[in-house]
Amino acid sequence: MNPAVSSQAPARPIAPIAPIGQEAARRGAAARAPIRRGEWVTHTSGLADDLVQGNLVVLPHALAADFERYCRLNPRPCPLLAVGRPGDASVPELGADIDIRSDLPRYRVWRHGELVAEPTDIRDLWRDDLVAFVIGCSFSFEWALRADGVPLRHVELGRNVAMYRTNVATEPAGPFHGPMVMSMRPLRAADAIRAVEITARFPAVHGAPMHLGDPSLIGIADLAAPDYGDAVELRPGELPVFWACGVTPQAAIAAARPDFCITHAPGAMLVTDLCNDQLDTVQAGPATTHHLR
Amino acid sequence: MNPAVSSQAPARPIAPIAPIGQEAARRGAAARAPIRRGEWVTHTSGLADDLVQGNLVVLPHALAADFERYCRLNPRPCPLLAVGRPGDASVPELGADIDIRSDLPRYRVWRHGELVAEPTDIRDLWRDDLVAFVIGCSFSFEWALRADGVPLRHVELGRNVAMYRTNVATEPAGPFHGPMVMSMRPLRAADAIRAVEITARFPAVHGAPMHLGDPSLIGIADLAAPDYGDAVELRPGELPVFWACGVTPQAAIAAARPDFCITHAPGAMLVTDLCNDQLDTVQAGPATTHHLR
Repeated sequence: MNPAVSSQAPARPIAPIAPIGQEAARRGAAARAPIRRGEWVTHTSGLADDLVQGNLVVLPHALAADFERYCRLNPRPCPLLAVGRPGDASVPELGADIDIRSDLPRYRVWRHGELVAEPTDIRDLWRDDLVAFVIGCSFSFEWALRADGVPLRHVELGRNVAMYRTNVATEPAGPFHGPMVMSMRPLRAADAIRAVEITARFPAVHGAPMHLGDPSLIGIADLAAPDYGDAVELRPGELPVFWACGVTPQAAIAAARPDFCITHAPGAMLVTDLCNDQLDTVQAGPATTHHLR
Repeated sequence: MNPAVSSQAPARPIAPIAPIGQEAARRGAAARAPIRRGEWVTHTSGLADDLVQGNLVVLPHALAADFERYCRLNPRPCPLLAVGRPGDASVPELGADIDIRSDLPRYRVWRHGELVAEPTDIRDLWRDDLVAFVIGCSFSFEWALRADGVPLRHVELGRNVAMYRTNVATEPAGPFHGPMVMSMRPLRAADAIRAVEITARFPAVHGAPMHLGDPSLIGIADLAAPDYGDAVELRPGELPVFWACGVTPQAAIAAARPDFCITHAPGAMLVTDLCNDQLDTVQAGPATTHHLR
């Protein structure tokens, strides 16, 4: 482990999740309905933005145990929100009516590590041995940051966040391995401090930053040349602040080159019925009854 | 307010304090006994170090309201643990048997802003119009940082922490005003992030850092020349991390030049019966019954 970065161990156990509220379930279903009908085929950013959105990974059962272990060994970049049963396209913890095969706007289908299709529905590709993984996404903590007035330049500019492959290795599991990818947001010191406080409350969606300050300490030579997403300017008086990023599991899957895999298309996430504030370990507190399985 | 630094408003209300435990009361009384007898006349660092220690300020009643307002307007540098009643030398919230006149190892007596004596007892100076203020101290959050393995160089070197007058002005109240004094601890980024997470849980003892990174943004020209305490080296890969400091109220009192004032002598604090972990807003939680008055 690179000593420059935070330990991956979350400060607290992954968030217990309170039961889904009726109103949130209604709004989640309403957001998914046009997606399910194939009428909404683009990104989900800004769609019902107080609801939790998730990254999707679908793998054959033969690889599922290794991938789940990889996620559990690397909870900061790969925070599991839910793991499906083999062949089961429902995810009742995240929404009563969710069908993983139709409820994302666009998917990516991979064979032997190569992108072969970008369908808007995967019902015809579904198999009895497929296992769905839903992984937390930074949209939830960005919602909390914006709610507290922390400015996010990439949001203001309408860009994707800047992401970098770092020299921090993830813990390997079976064929899954690779560098930790981190997203970067430029913040003034006071906002960086608040951002640490706020995101630390959300271990189910990457938690506190892994690093801040000098990018070379985590193997980033040039902030202006991100490996994924769009560059944003670092202004005088600002620090670059780095969070573990949900692109990390995608990089691990690319390295593993499984014979078959389905993921969400970039930005086209699963909208769930959970509210972002249900992932807040301080607000939601310990008096919740519904736990992640 | 300098936009480079954190808002002073604590993220949560000042910690509710749980009732004092019998065992802590026994140990607090045991720590104070030799002090009260005049046998311990030096600093209290390391004395019963899981117990909360406090800074003392004693002022005539005519100035007490302004000073209390100054503290409440500036909760980060001046977190009030308790305010006494005029003429009353007891502080039952902090320890059943505390006598503020005898239970600190050494005091400083000030007249018109000039240091006139450093007695080990102030019973003969006590008056019916004097009001005692006990203010939280960084010993409590340093205890929590050390408990979590965050290295503190000044502790390792046996030095006093480095403190700086910054260009951040405190909110004035009556005659009390002046710059915010901040203490600095050099930390690697990962430790700085953990230190933000940990100290944010302790709003009653200065809370999260006010600033990190570039010292010039808060008016510090030379880290090697602190205004109080001892300089420590900033090593490659480390960031300077700045917390609001309990020397701030002393600077405000020096500016106000009250005709009469008593403080603790540097490092010679009040040992209370509260445990440091009772100030932890996460561990102690909301289910506490005894509130700061």
